[in-house]
Amino acid sequence: MTVFSSLDSLRAACTSLPLGSEDAAAAAAARQEQLTKPPGSLGRLETLVAWLAHWQERSTPCLDRVDVVVFAGNHGVVAQSVSPYPAAVTAQMVGNFERGGAAINQIAANAGARLRVVPLTLDVPTADFTVAPAMDEAGFLTAVNIGAEVVEPGLDLLCLGEMGIGNTTAAAALCAALFGGGGALWAGRGTGLDAAGVAHKVAVVDTALLRQETLMDDPLQIARALGGRELAAILGAVIAARHNRVPVLLDGFVCTAAAAPLARLARGGLDHAVLAHLSAESGHRVLADTLGLTPLLSLDMRLGEASGAALAVPILRAALACHTGMATFADAGVSDRP
Amino acid sequence: MTVFSSLDSLRAACTSLPLGSEDAAAAAAARQEQLTKPPGSLGRLETLVAWLAHWQERSTPCLDRVDVVVFAGNHGVVAQSVSPYPAAVTAQMVGNFERGGAAINQIAANAGARLRVVPLTLDVPTADFTVAPAMDEAGFLTAVNIGAEVVEPGLDLLCLGEMGIGNTTAAAALCAALFGGGGALWAGRGTGLDAAGVAHKVAVVDTALLRQETLMDDPLQIARALGGRELAAILGAVIAARHNRVPVLLDGFVCTAAAAPLARLARGGLDHAVLAHLSAESGHRVLADTLGLTPLLSLDMRLGEASGAALAVPILRAALACHTGMATFADAGVSDRP
Repeated sequence: MTVFSSLDSLRAACTSLPLGSEDAAAAAAARQEQLTKPPGSLGRLETLVAWLAHWQERSTPCLDRVDVVVFAGNHGVVAQSVSPYPAAVTAQMVGNFERGGAAINQIAANAGARLRVVPLTLDVPTADFTVAPAMDEAGFLTAVNIGAEVVEPGLDLLCLGEMGIGNTTAAAALCAALFGGGGALWAGRGTGLDAAGVAHKVAVVDTALLRQETLMDDPLQIARALGGRELAAILGAVIAARHNRVPVLLDGFVCTAAAAPLARLARGGLDHAVLAHLSAESGHRVLADTLGLTPLLSLDMRLGEASGAALAVPILRAALACHTGMATFADAGVSDRP
Repeated sequence: MTVFSSLDSLRAACTSLPLGSEDAAAAAAARQEQLTKPPGSLGRLETLVAWLAHWQERSTPCLDRVDVVVFAGNHGVVAQSVSPYPAAVTAQMVGNFERGGAAINQIAANAGARLRVVPLTLDVPTADFTVAPAMDEAGFLTAVNIGAEVVEPGLDLLCLGEMGIGNTTAAAALCAALFGGGGALWAGRGTGLDAAGVAHKVAVVDTALLRQETLMDDPLQIARALGGRELAAILGAVIAARHNRVPVLLDGFVCTAAAAPLARLARGGLDHAVLAHLSAESGHRVLADTLGLTPLLSLDMRLGEASGAALAVPILRAALACHTGMATFADAGVSDRP
């Protein structure tokens, strides 16, 4: 368990990140060269195994314990009419997750992963950040700690995702505060806004940026003021994963935005995370490029719920199966190139 | 079983293709609109299910019986030094497939698919097509029929791939003959040629095009003269799959090139096939664009062996699991948008 008692201790955890094992990554890469295939011909499958090795700190990584965690939160900014769906849908969808009826239930089962759903005080939305900071420091830390506590030691991979009506607006505001560009660069259609709805969302984000601009120097204050509880929990989980040798698969726009403060606080802060997919939500490509993340999948999805992260798990399983199951040229009596 | 006794009967099969069931596809798409997610938010997962429904001709498709078939062939053009590996590697790799040591063994197992390996007279390579047509008509038809015969009725999905030292040269020649552009547009690094090796390969392809140019009006004659047995078998399998309600996942450059004559012979001829991945082999992007195929995956792979096709199977399984397992808005008591 990793628990942060203050913003300072959280900040210290963000700026004293373990660096993983380059030796383990190199050993995994060296084995790839011996396997019965032209060098490099498995492409990203090879680099994924080296990445798992690096952050699990073992030359033969493992994917026995894969968790998918979906954090859910409600947002005061929904009062500004930024979503076509009512806020009640957040709790209704948590019920749907718990009964097994959502997309992520099917995708996690298909991935051989355990699904956990963590609702965060859904009956009390965060403050409307066009008026006041979304959370006070205690509330922000509580959410960060709930996220950190889901990272069980010994986990092999953590897939992160979220559910929260209105949270693409929070993600857009967070990105604009962290990286500039205003609402126009980051606000998109979300669950299905039309052009007028997007224009309104842009204005809401820009209002929030003006209102909270005194906090803009500090990525953690930005996450507190313009994020949401489920985003704070994702941030906590990403930080705790780094401290516990657990590689992370990031999901779509909201999930990546939630993790972005760590990239602002520490160079290489997201090196233990892979972006599982590129969302159709317009801000996600900008954010992926800004963070230097190359998505594994690009399938025009825009659901959240960790759906893209869990969808990528079988790709990692295939990569690892090749690494551990393939014969070497010597084993198989196959002629290597002269 | 579908057996072609002559080039004419093969041509007839190519130009009298079943059109699948648009009703089944529409029914699948209609169900997607009821599921607990914003409309369209599962992106390509939704269209993949409709595609399976269309070509399996049932509104609830199935993925119980998934076959991966790897055809292997040897190529006379290897005498022109177009590969860094010796031709003996083709048979050695078939042995590796049979012992379970290759990448495709691991990836097919990970996909819950049955792997079948079909070597095609490896001890007698096709003719060097810089000198003579690769195959005579009888030999070409034999290979096409072997491919057609692997398509068992009742199969739910067929993943196709190949192994054959020298076969990216055959694929490049085939594409150049079908679509123009010469060797320079289509010849790439294959298993790992350097720049001088690629330049030589371009020249070999251009020599072959000159030598065989009298056959260039007919896609089937092109496949006979500039292809190879494993490519002909893939063509046969793709045609037989269409006639047997079996959707197809195409693998990389060689596999897609092998199927391309059908696209030349019939508009929509490859509509029952999805391109599973985009290979790092340079000609593949050109070919995918030419055929209007949008790959599911792009992971910088260039191995062949159906590795990319089998890697995409879990994506299809996830798509189908969502389709069959998700609750509707009505079932789940989740508020739909007003």
